[in-house]
Amino acid sequence: MINNQEDTRHHVVIIGSGFGGLFAAKALRRAPVRVTLIDRTNHHLFQPLLYQVATGILSEGQIAPATRDIFRNYASMRVVLGEVESIDPHSRKVHVREFGQPHAIAYDSLIVAAGAVTSYFGHDEFRHEASGMKSLDDAIRLRGQIFGAFERAEAEEDDERRAAFMTFVVIGGGPTGVEMAGQLKELSRRALRSNYRRIDPHSTRVVLVEGGERLLAGMGERLSRITARDMADMGVEVHLHAMVTGMDPSGVEITMQDGSTLRVDAATRIWAAGTRGSPLGAQLAEATGATLDRAGRLQVEPDCTVPGHPDIFVVGDLMALDDLPGVAEVAIQSGSHCGHTIHRRLKGNDVRRPFKYHDLGTLAAISRFRAVADVGPFKVGGLLGWLLWLVVHITFLTGFKNRFGALARWAVSFVGHGRYERALTGRWATGEDPSPDSA
Amino acid sequence: MINNQEDTRHHVVIIGSGFGGLFAAKALRRAPVRVTLIDRTNHHLFQPLLYQVATGILSEGQIAPATRDIFRNYASMRVVLGEVESIDPHSRKVHVREFGQPHAIAYDSLIVAAGAVTSYFGHDEFRHEASGMKSLDDAIRLRGQIFGAFERAEAEEDDERRAAFMTFVVIGGGPTGVEMAGQLKELSRRALRSNYRRIDPHSTRVVLVEGGERLLAGMGERLSRITARDMADMGVEVHLHAMVTGMDPSGVEITMQDGSTLRVDAATRIWAAGTRGSPLGAQLAEATGATLDRAGRLQVEPDCTVPGHPDIFVVGDLMALDDLPGVAEVAIQSGSHCGHTIHRRLKGNDVRRPFKYHDLGTLAAISRFRAVADVGPFKVGGLLGWLLWLVVHITFLTGFKNRFGALARWAVSFVGHGRYERALTGRWATGEDPSPDSA
Repeated sequence: MINNQEDTRHHVVIIGSGFGGLFAAKALRRAPVRVTLIDRTNHHLFQPLLYQVATGILSEGQIAPATRDIFRNYASMRVVLGEVESIDPHSRKVHVREFGQPHAIAYDSLIVAAGAVTSYFGHDEFRHEASGMKSLDDAIRLRGQIFGAFERAEAEEDDERRAAFMTFVVIGGGPTGVEMAGQLKELSRRALRSNYRRIDPHSTRVVLVEGGERLLAGMGERLSRITARDMADMGVEVHLHAMVTGMDPSGVEITMQDGSTLRVDAATRIWAAGTRGSPLGAQLAEATGATLDRAGRLQVEPDCTVPGHPDIFVVGDLMALDDLPGVAEVAIQSGSHCGHTIHRRLKGNDVRRPFKYHDLGTLAAISRFRAVADVGPFKVGGLLGWLLWLVVHITFLTGFKNRFGALARWAVSFVGHGRYERALTGRWATGEDPSPDSA
Repeated sequence: MINNQEDTRHHVVIIGSGFGGLFAAKALRRAPVRVTLIDRTNHHLFQPLLYQVATGILSEGQIAPATRDIFRNYASMRVVLGEVESIDPHSRKVHVREFGQPHAIAYDSLIVAAGAVTSYFGHDEFRHEASGMKSLDDAIRLRGQIFGAFERAEAEEDDERRAAFMTFVVIGGGPTGVEMAGQLKELSRRALRSNYRRIDPHSTRVVLVEGGERLLAGMGERLSRITARDMADMGVEVHLHAMVTGMDPSGVEITMQDGSTLRVDAATRIWAAGTRGSPLGAQLAEATGATLDRAGRLQVEPDCTVPGHPDIFVVGDLMALDDLPGVAEVAIQSGSHCGHTIHRRLKGNDVRRPFKYHDLGTLAAISRFRAVADVGPFKVGGLLGWLLWLVVHITFLTGFKNRFGALARWAVSFVGHGRYERALTGRWATGEDPSPDSA
């Protein structure tokens, strides 16, 4: 047993095992420090592929490797499964609850990579009507809702109710929403082919609602146009300049730019419209006097530290810096930057080097063999975009076995037609209500 | 849309999508019938590999392919996701509840393949203290308990409580219990290696409790001896002639043959001791005057029909005939036999051909590269047994993609050391109680 109490090395505490925390820890591998990584889940989550768990392509484990296993060869690193309740920047302690037991963990340097949570933009009541797309639990719940909805449609005698079970409303036209809408069409047009005797999955209606003027607004106008065309080709019903202004257990109300409203009866509603910084950011801002931006992200110095607290770093989705987007790549690079900064400081080099983001681009899969990619000099759609998507996702998936496993599943799902993970378990079995309310 | 109401072909209703129901439906593929297959789950379950889901090797989908997808090319077959409430042999109807709605489904021939449920042998209160190993939900719950127990041990300050989290009691020394005990040792000795900083997973205690005089009693004395030796080599603590006579939230009481008792504090208890026929068997026995045996199985005629009801067949684990064991192979062959019998009858050949079971043998995996196999002329242990185990399981897994996927996972788990599926989700996250009671 290693007794961390007696270890006098510089102690780095990292909050969060997402991309930011993961790459901070990796950057510290050869530093003369001990590291404690705290997360409320036992896994790293490859969030960009959550929609593939929700639609039955990948298994939970394939996008969520155990954090302990990723770091098994990091002898100076301890992984704590616990919920951080607060940070005390004055006594330099993190207050954690592990299986109900409160603990205080003292740090010398702190990296806060607590990420973001689903934001319903003031409509907190929507939480009960539309599942978010942030955690593995979200994806598992959605998987049950989606496959359960087809089962219920097959059993339903009433035409209107049947149509509502076969209608899916995706709110938010960013990469998550676009990928989800595309996969729902793939699922209904290919994967469920010949599975049902009463319903025709081809008649599935997928509605994509975006408040702004175009889909994938972060990727440039040309790719937005390609995406809109591809979505239309697939039969996704896209509403731009449109807001969801009402939700109830049987459907949503969409308000268009001209003030007209559209009622869509839909059993399954997926909220991919927005996120805001983890509540831990607000607590830290209050304790340090730092400011939060409108998305609940903490404003940091150019080197990712909290103003006046050079020992506290904030990275990834919780960090507000230079209007950087909340994407995996920002978390990876900022996490890595902080790890290296701490290592350099311990070598006596305390220059506060600013974080410079190298935009490696953005990708979004539309359907099998079709994606849009804005990567370096490449701004492409279609098959070429999809091949780029494939290479990038295989490269970034954590660990050889997940790369291999995902490739095999993609072969099954895209070249073949099947979905591995369709088993309905727990409350998704017969007769239970698929509304997220009772989750 | 196909309107089954207007189809005048002979209607075969199959209850259960386990091995019995699956092979009955396959045998009817070319018969001039329409088939309705009813199950309360949406999947076929490859039960012999449930322990691999519980220990993180395989994903749910790999052992539980969607029933609809298996039969997607069977145009005359309808799959109903519903709970059978009763069978009325006089009006020839099955009463089903689909998503809360009651329906009656009329049949011309009925195949009851409803299987078995976990039996606590009169100790129904044990249900809250020890998880069964029959359904996918059981395996997922156990997976959460097992990986959660190591997490809790790592966080635990108290030595005794830590030891209890690292103690696993498996009740029942048949194939399920032996395979589970072996995998728990594999998990703690290899898969979790270097994952923890405070606990040493090597010190995990696995206790296997068997009421009879030997392990794998169905396989002959020599293989029982090999199994006992292999279990001892792995450090599994085996108690023969021993019964669990008490259970509470912190452990079990084991009573030995000589009347002495042993208290084992263990957070995780797995019940692999026994099963009894589905309650539907009792309802059918009452309605037809048939007899149930002590294990709740319905006594059938030599051709698997219910006495006096040649249109009702009972197969698999719910069938009592010639003391056949409750194994997959009996379900497969009896299901197939009934399908063929119905097909023959429709051709005018109504000879009541008795069901003859061809014992293809039994296998149980002990650890990676080690199994005992009693297959035809082979009664072997060790690596040769394991190779037989591998060939048989790959052959019987349903569908190419599951075969390929399982092989890949086995390569990762047995040649490598990792476990894919370790993500703790839902109630298994921080701080929740891992007792099955609150499941």
